[in-house]
Amino acid sequence: MKLYDGGKAPNPRRVRIFLAEKGLSVPLVPIDMSALEHRDTQIAGLNPLRRLPVLELDNGTAISESVAICRYFEELHPDPPLMGEGPVGKAQVEMWQRRMEMHLLLFVANVFRHAHPAMKDWEVPQITQFSEANRPKVMESLVWLDSELQERDFIAGDVFTIADITAMIAIDFMKPARLAVPDECSAVLEWYARVKARPSADA
Amino acid sequence: MKLYDGGKAPNPRRVRIFLAEKGLSVPLVPIDMSALEHRDTQIAGLNPLRRLPVLELDNGTAISESVAICRYFEELHPDPPLMGEGPVGKAQVEMWQRRMEMHLLLFVANVFRHAHPAMKDWEVPQITQFSEANRPKVMESLVWLDSELQERDFIAGDVFTIADITAMIAIDFMKPARLAVPDECSAVLEWYARVKARPSADA
Repeated sequence: MKLYDGGKAPNPRRVRIFLAEKGLSVPLVPIDMSALEHRDTQIAGLNPLRRLPVLELDNGTAISESVAICRYFEELHPDPPLMGEGPVGKAQVEMWQRRMEMHLLLFVANVFRHAHPAMKDWEVPQITQFSEANRPKVMESLVWLDSELQERDFIAGDVFTIADITAMIAIDFMKPARLAVPDECSAVLEWYARVKARPSADA
Repeated sequence: MKLYDGGKAPNPRRVRIFLAEKGLSVPLVPIDMSALEHRDTQIAGLNPLRRLPVLELDNGTAISESVAICRYFEELHPDPPLMGEGPVGKAQVEMWQRRMEMHLLLFVANVFRHAHPAMKDWEVPQITQFSEANRPKVMESLVWLDSELQERDFIAGDVFTIADITAMIAIDFMKPARLAVPDECSAVLEWYARVKARPSADA
């Protein structure tokens, strides 16, 4: 088994943090995304969308999409559960993972990709107006998330899950997008300090 | 148990088709999205993001996000499996469901929301240039999907799964987005005819 890894980009980090929380170690194949190595034929043969990470199993089966890779490890190694337990628990974690993905990570990514000079060959065309339109959406989501986190320690409830991982990588991604969590979102800032203090955050 | 339903919009349909494939019947509460009823306080109390559908369990627990609602029913009623079987199977279906969501449905939605006059109060600001930039992305994804479907009957393999449902609602959504599958994507058109012929397509 090999994990074709993309370094500090959000989705490769998502899988590495998930593995660290599970206590699993998978051999990594580093791919230099800044040199566009993920567009090479080797990666295209594993994932026609040329995105990272990709997990290659010993029989040659390739699994891409970071949450799908996490699902594979969750099914193989259910303890500790990071994607919920039981029908209601699994559904609630999936709900929060998707909310963090579609209403936070995606908005941050839109701000970044459509404005940052380093993205001009990745996001064609870059549309500055679209980047700007996503800034207030990030802020609205943070204010909402702050109200949610008044009542609990983690995004989907009382335990750490993949929803926390997605939210953490989204907030980390705000830095290169030149966004910051406002001081008044104190519950978000406290939650962020809590998840960043876990050893997995450095994975 | 009640499913707050949003009629012909893609995500409400996704859950209804999933239930029909499972042979399950859940009482529906129709919400008129064209009259913006989903923005009422009743829905906001169930889903602060004011999106549909929302499943309300008998104990008052609310589950939103269409794929999370599907996950709940998949866990409760695993037969027929629509989200894969075993660690590799589940990961592969999740991979394909996400690919169809992020690389097809999202692109179609971007074309629609940022251009259609009916969306001007929903997507603020509408950015015509962003709508236009997503048109070629839809076409690229269809050409890629066509190459994939040369080799198999369904999106994620030899059986119908949630990935087919997401792809079908994406292609149905192309009509109001004023997009069409090009004739040369014959494998996509054959697959589409195959899934549209299933009774669930009318759900």
